[in-house]
Amino acid sequence: MSAGKLSVVGLGPGDARFLTPEAQAALDRAEWLYGYAPYLDRIEVRSEQRKIPSDNRVEAERAYEALAAAVEGRRVAMVSGGDPGVFAMAAAVCEQVERGPEAFRTLELEIVPGISAMLAAAAACGAPLGHDFCVISLSDNLKPWTLIERRLDAAAEVGFAMAFYNPISKARPWQLDSAFARLRERLPAATPVVFARAIGRADQRLRVSSLGEASGEWADMATLVIVGSPATRVIERPGRPPLVYTPRRA
Amino acid sequence: MSAGKLSVVGLGPGDARFLTPEAQAALDRAEWLYGYAPYLDRIEVRSEQRKIPSDNRVEAERAYEALAAAVEGRRVAMVSGGDPGVFAMAAAVCEQVERGPEAFRTLELEIVPGISAMLAAAAACGAPLGHDFCVISLSDNLKPWTLIERRLDAAAEVGFAMAFYNPISKARPWQLDSAFARLRERLPAATPVVFARAIGRADQRLRVSSLGEASGEWADMATLVIVGSPATRVIERPGRPPLVYTPRRA
Repeated sequence: MSAGKLSVVGLGPGDARFLTPEAQAALDRAEWLYGYAPYLDRIEVRSEQRKIPSDNRVEAERAYEALAAAVEGRRVAMVSGGDPGVFAMAAAVCEQVERGPEAFRTLELEIVPGISAMLAAAAACGAPLGHDFCVISLSDNLKPWTLIERRLDAAAEVGFAMAFYNPISKARPWQLDSAFARLRERLPAATPVVFARAIGRADQRLRVSSLGEASGEWADMATLVIVGSPATRVIERPGRPPLVYTPRRA
Repeated sequence: MSAGKLSVVGLGPGDARFLTPEAQAALDRAEWLYGYAPYLDRIEVRSEQRKIPSDNRVEAERAYEALAAAVEGRRVAMVSGGDPGVFAMAAAVCEQVERGPEAFRTLELEIVPGISAMLAAAAACGAPLGHDFCVISLSDNLKPWTLIERRLDAAAEVGFAMAFYNPISKARPWQLDSAFARLRERLPAATPVVFARAIGRADQRLRVSSLGEASGEWADMATLVIVGSPATRVIERPGRPPLVYTPRRA
């Protein structure tokens, strides 16, 4: 068995205040660090450590290369924004472990969780995910849009709050508005909707709206969108931003 | 406006390795620390700080008392295991802000996210929550069991992976087996099921099974249960525990 190891490390939402000691230790131990370039840019490394940045469309290749480097004996970290297990690199690495050479399956593999975007976004506005909820990627790059629609319908019908990852991009400009339109047929117009952009970073922005008003124009690739359940409440506060929460009896 | 402040702080899954610097700073700043006694036991405080432990059935009272202490000018922390926003104290605090005196709404309130049990459990076994998923409390203390059944049915029908909080307790001994039985009518017997107990603590235990075999006897109050979607895969590894993951095309 190789002495190499691959650690898939969640950086959390951005600022080092949200990076766990476990994740920092995994970064410190690594010789080579792979990742999407903007995530690698967030971390400082020692001169003998090597960063190997890549584009955000090459997850499979990045995972394969990192596994191969670890099999060759390197201590390798794969960095991921937020939590690596939620629409991020942990699944891409597991896919390559399954498809790749036998050596990938004997390798030491560690996954270090991080504060996910949905948890950071929820904390920034209250507790909108305080009761049963679902988490959906609105990207139809890897699954048909009709399946996303079925999941939205089901979530609305049984009263899940919802967190949307990948709500919009230049190549997918209409999906978020289409999702809002579909949900309007099943949920009250007053259902709270939260647009949480870049939470935990310097350019953080939070907007609390309603399903009746919500517009895809208020989101970009760095936005996490939360749609409440019919039970979700907004508390207006004098001189402070509103609190959004889903009660425990929901 | 009072100089007091309430910070609702997520401790993560247990070990201090998973406590973020932001959460540690919030604990350090607090004068009074409220929480369920076993969570308070996890943290060390200075002699001038005061711990106010309470039982796990009194979330509303604990939240009210913490808010009242902050309104009186104290710097107060409310500690929560995992993430405070997921079936935990953030929603209970928001409920009291809404119901309580006007002063609760002008108070400075901060919610500091933590690594939730589901993220820690998923990381310990691979990436079972790597694609669309839902999160359900199996406790029928605060909602009818029939609603939980509808959510289970919907989740199975549209292919969500599932994370179950509060799967079982002495007062709720049959709910988890009932959920498994219901899911067996809609999902293949080979669907992976993960029992993740006390992940991130010294007595951590992980069991990977299948829906056909899964038994409620394998869970206790400290267990997070994950049920895969029909797309979820188990990778057997020589000399290592299996990896469980949900592919990105799911």
